[in-house]
Amino acid sequence: MLRSALHDVLVFFLTLFVVPFHPISINPIYNPASHMKKLYSNLLLLVLLVPLWATAQTPAIQRVNPTNWWVGMKEPKLQLLVYGPNAGTLTYTINHPGVKLVKTNTVENPNYAFLDLTIAASTKPGTVQIIGKKGPQTVTQAWELKARDNSPKGQGVTQADFIYLAMPDRFANGDPSNDKFADMRDPNHDRSNGFLRHGGDLAGAAQRLPYLKDLGITAVWFTPVIENNQPLTNEGGTMRASYHGYGFTDHYNVDRRLGGNSAYKAFVGKAHAAGLKVVQDAVYNHIGNTHWFIQDLPMKSWLHQWPTYTNTSYRQQPITDPHASQLDRKVTLDGWFVPFLPDLNQENPYVANFLIQHAIWTVENFGVDAWRIDTYMYNDQPFMNRCNQALLTEYPQIHIFGESSVNNVVDQAYYVRNKIDFPFKSNQPGGLDFVLEGAMVDGLKHDGSPQRMYEALAQDAVYQDPAKLVTFLDNHDHDRFLSVMGEDYDKYKMGLTWLLTTRGIPSMYYGTEILMKNLKNPTDAEVRRDFPGGWPGDKQDKFTAAGRTAQENEAFQFVRTLATYRRDHPMLHSGKLMQYLPQDGMYVYFRYDDKGTVMVATNATDKPIAMHTARFSERMSGFTKARNVLTNETLDSVATVQVPAKTAVVLELMR
Amino acid sequence: MLRSALHDVLVFFLTLFVVPFHPISINPIYNPASHMKKLYSNLLLLVLLVPLWATAQTPAIQRVNPTNWWVGMKEPKLQLLVYGPNAGTLTYTINHPGVKLVKTNTVENPNYAFLDLTIAASTKPGTVQIIGKKGPQTVTQAWELKARDNSPKGQGVTQADFIYLAMPDRFANGDPSNDKFADMRDPNHDRSNGFLRHGGDLAGAAQRLPYLKDLGITAVWFTPVIENNQPLTNEGGTMRASYHGYGFTDHYNVDRRLGGNSAYKAFVGKAHAAGLKVVQDAVYNHIGNTHWFIQDLPMKSWLHQWPTYTNTSYRQQPITDPHASQLDRKVTLDGWFVPFLPDLNQENPYVANFLIQHAIWTVENFGVDAWRIDTYMYNDQPFMNRCNQALLTEYPQIHIFGESSVNNVVDQAYYVRNKIDFPFKSNQPGGLDFVLEGAMVDGLKHDGSPQRMYEALAQDAVYQDPAKLVTFLDNHDHDRFLSVMGEDYDKYKMGLTWLLTTRGIPSMYYGTEILMKNLKNPTDAEVRRDFPGGWPGDKQDKFTAAGRTAQENEAFQFVRTLATYRRDHPMLHSGKLMQYLPQDGMYVYFRYDDKGTVMVATNATDKPIAMHTARFSERMSGFTKARNVLTNETLDSVATVQVPAKTAVVLELMR
Repeated sequence: MLRSALHDVLVFFLTLFVVPFHPISINPIYNPASHMKKLYSNLLLLVLLVPLWATAQTPAIQRVNPTNWWVGMKEPKLQLLVYGPNAGTLTYTINHPGVKLVKTNTVENPNYAFLDLTIAASTKPGTVQIIGKKGPQTVTQAWELKARDNSPKGQGVTQADFIYLAMPDRFANGDPSNDKFADMRDPNHDRSNGFLRHGGDLAGAAQRLPYLKDLGITAVWFTPVIENNQPLTNEGGTMRASYHGYGFTDHYNVDRRLGGNSAYKAFVGKAHAAGLKVVQDAVYNHIGNTHWFIQDLPMKSWLHQWPTYTNTSYRQQPITDPHASQLDRKVTLDGWFVPFLPDLNQENPYVANFLIQHAIWTVENFGVDAWRIDTYMYNDQPFMNRCNQALLTEYPQIHIFGESSVNNVVDQAYYVRNKIDFPFKSNQPGGLDFVLEGAMVDGLKHDGSPQRMYEALAQDAVYQDPAKLVTFLDNHDHDRFLSVMGEDYDKYKMGLTWLLTTRGIPSMYYGTEILMKNLKNPTDAEVRRDFPGGWPGDKQDKFTAAGRTAQENEAFQFVRTLATYRRDHPMLHSGKLMQYLPQDGMYVYFRYDDKGTVMVATNATDKPIAMHTARFSERMSGFTKARNVLTNETLDSVATVQVPAKTAVVLELMR
Repeated sequence: MLRSALHDVLVFFLTLFVVPFHPISINPIYNPASHMKKLYSNLLLLVLLVPLWATAQTPAIQRVNPTNWWVGMKEPKLQLLVYGPNAGTLTYTINHPGVKLVKTNTVENPNYAFLDLTIAASTKPGTVQIIGKKGPQTVTQAWELKARDNSPKGQGVTQADFIYLAMPDRFANGDPSNDKFADMRDPNHDRSNGFLRHGGDLAGAAQRLPYLKDLGITAVWFTPVIENNQPLTNEGGTMRASYHGYGFTDHYNVDRRLGGNSAYKAFVGKAHAAGLKVVQDAVYNHIGNTHWFIQDLPMKSWLHQWPTYTNTSYRQQPITDPHASQLDRKVTLDGWFVPFLPDLNQENPYVANFLIQHAIWTVENFGVDAWRIDTYMYNDQPFMNRCNQALLTEYPQIHIFGESSVNNVVDQAYYVRNKIDFPFKSNQPGGLDFVLEGAMVDGLKHDGSPQRMYEALAQDAVYQDPAKLVTFLDNHDHDRFLSVMGEDYDKYKMGLTWLLTTRGIPSMYYGTEILMKNLKNPTDAEVRRDFPGGWPGDKQDKFTAAGRTAQENEAFQFVRTLATYRRDHPMLHSGKLMQYLPQDGMYVYFRYDDKGTVMVATNATDKPIAMHTARFSERMSGFTKARNVLTNETLDSVATVQVPAKTAVVLELMR
């Protein structure tokens, strides 16, 4: 206990003063020019102190990552990260039948050892003893090799699904006892402040599963649930909490304020029991600057280091541009996303192994079904291919879709399985379809026209399988769709109809179904408001019909009707898309397979149109009648279809 | 003579009344509803008349296409189109050593025979007798097999070139005796009317070759020179002449008003003697509706026929869209460009052979060096590949670049050799770079920014060789560049600097160098005005420095300086391009090879910038000085470069 306290003091001291001069320091974070004078004055003391501390410590093991593993995985190799004072100075043995310690790797920092294991197919589950020796000292650490369970995991999401994206801190608070913890770096909880934590959690979300299921949702995607034990950060004078989840501080813990590992496992179990899937939001590019391994870096090359702090340019072009400079490429890839999220160097094989194993551990441990990858385009792409392949090897049905926020299909194609002969070939099965989002939303916004949407889909030839892209109208980083539409409810309905009937795997940001709105101006907190009714004592409860206004109920039913229709009709899961040139104010497309055909006809003008359908005989031949999916009306003839102004009608064709 | 006159009367009669009911009619042109009543009243007479006329005619040969051929071509096969009354009823023999008549093909119309020949490598040049027999009648037609000459032909254009696009009717009039011909369908000549012919010709252009050479031009591209013996067409109440050249009426004749075949051959000879190349503007998609073979169609499938007149949609998407309908594809491809330009069916093998052989005949006969293809995207693409390959087989250095007016790189790539796994793979070496035109011009127009240009070039990964694209800022179908810039001379200079220093083969529309301006509003005649000084008696002569204003001379010298610098510096012919992310108001790129490096630094802001160049060390390392190509100043240091507001500086780096 005393040793631990002493260690904490030293770590704190080192973090503040020594790190800039240590060979494995992270210059960019802790090197503001104003601190330099102070730093130099402390230098002499520290130069003496560091080696004394390092050699004085008795070797110990404080952490092993992954925290456990399983027998019967397809990949027999595993690399254990073993951390503790002078853990890298121990000589290791492992004594468990089937588990072989192939090599012990030591690195710059003596507090780390990386143990290369192989786990034979015949290995039995049980407790493995990791034994480290140094002279007369022996350190023993128990580590579990579990049996795999039969619960569903890595089920994937397909066009048969409809994903609901929620920020767990902002969706529903099921356990007010975990809203804040005094021993965490950010001990705050304040629902009146959009930048602080609001207390939503996994227990709250689990309570709302019936609501989501009723709405026609089939999969839930939370912004990251992993521990973000970050302090508040000062961003332009505003103190912000890491409630969004993108600054991990310990990969192997779900944040206590969301309920921890047990709550996440319970949530996935309940979701699966209700027939819903769970999408994990993964972050490989960076971690929080108070992540435990940032405080005692294994080696300098663990991070992308720069002589002076260098932010990514956020620019896509240098990666795919055959005329790009190496410098621009490096800034895009290796520049930091923001100053407080250190950029992991995935070309470092220890980093790569750590991340890949964590991905597999997460699927196996929690049973998640799909994998959304944050800031995909900023990662080392050969690493991403390795990581994707590792997941697909263990979980062939899992779906992987990264966030690459680009503005054209060439760049979007680069990050997924594509048909362009780029020097690098991505193996990512899916991706978030930013291009289609822009096309749908900008088109509707500017002139209500589906022309841009049509043109975006017309470029699908660049993808191996555009149906595996995840489509959306907004998300936690964008203006809310309804507000972008100027709160034009007709446009809102057109957009949602397109989202739920065109190709791709639709996803919807929480609250869209109850007309939640706002722009990111003045701040992104505006688009991340609490779901009304998610907190005990909320005056409004929009999880219930009684708590919603008439128009909110209409919107809810609108989404529900389309979502359940989609859920129940295979031509929208695996059918083809055929789209016709927008003409005379009408944009018409079909989803169809051998068993069914749906026609979606959008009149983007402000006058009703009586549309003759002879032009669509390739798809309509043999059909004489139709059912309007949204109104449930029956059309006794489809020779001419009446389409109201600013409306997308959805017709199931009948013989 | 009498027979010929009778024939003409009958053709006229048939054209007006019979064609709609004849199996090889071209419905869309001659079938306005208002004519139907009249047509029916004449039907009985005509039904009787047609067979009488057809059988009464003595077989004769009036035309053979190609009009001659050469021995020693790589391709031994040739298909002769033989035309004349009942020419298809003759039995043919050919008696010339080495020439074998493999097959005589007859078609719906008895006035055509298509003779499949092979011409052995050993064949000697000479006059070939084509002998047709029918019963006691023998028809003999002499046809020349020439020796190939050694004059340059099919030399190609590369990045070493700078192409000047001119409309020959509007550039210079060297022979006022050929301005109009009373025996042509359009006998008008009226310089005061922008829609009528102005009398410019090849002789006039030939006189201006020294002007072009002095300007730094290395290749001339004329809008089509082939006979357009079309009547005036009524377009929205305006009577328009076919001075643009896109409505061929006899492939094997250059228009008399331009000087005919001899003037074209002379022009090419003079251009070659001056070191300039000649680009032919080829049209495969359509011909004029008074083309000789339209008046007596070989077969119905010679053209794309529709039940009612159908225009192309002018839309690119249905060709590349994997979700497109067959109907939309067909409308884009087979719909007519305009009602008076019948759409050739290149899937018809006789049409395909006719067009391919004409292409080769043109290069061999006139010695042209490169091949610009009109309305490329509306052609049958497998045909285009055959045609391109046939040209490249005979002339491996020839360059081929089509006009596919699209708005994104995916569609642009489809029509050239590309790196996208489309179901159809184009073999076209080059293409007109509409995407880069839009990016440069729109960017400059909207905010003076090179951002769009940068982003367009950053997508070059889709092309096999983007350096083979032909770049431009405007053309005869677009608003003139200077006017799009709002007559902002700084923007004009930035655009021209980019055009003449970035990758690709630059082309410039005539008169740009003397600040010719105008928008297409109200009509395209505005952007096709006569070059002042091109006509005897013109009050102004802008071909001479004395005739130009001070600013026109400055513009002329500006273009001349860049063009001659480009012409003389190989790093701009075959050097690589490296472009940096636009940053802090500056867009910087380099062209470089082992021997030289040019830096182009654009300050698109309205304030001068002192630009530090450390960021560009990948390209600037080792260079300490520079010469400003446009001002001829020497920079003794390049650590910081002063870039005036709204200026692109061109620096040749020096050690």
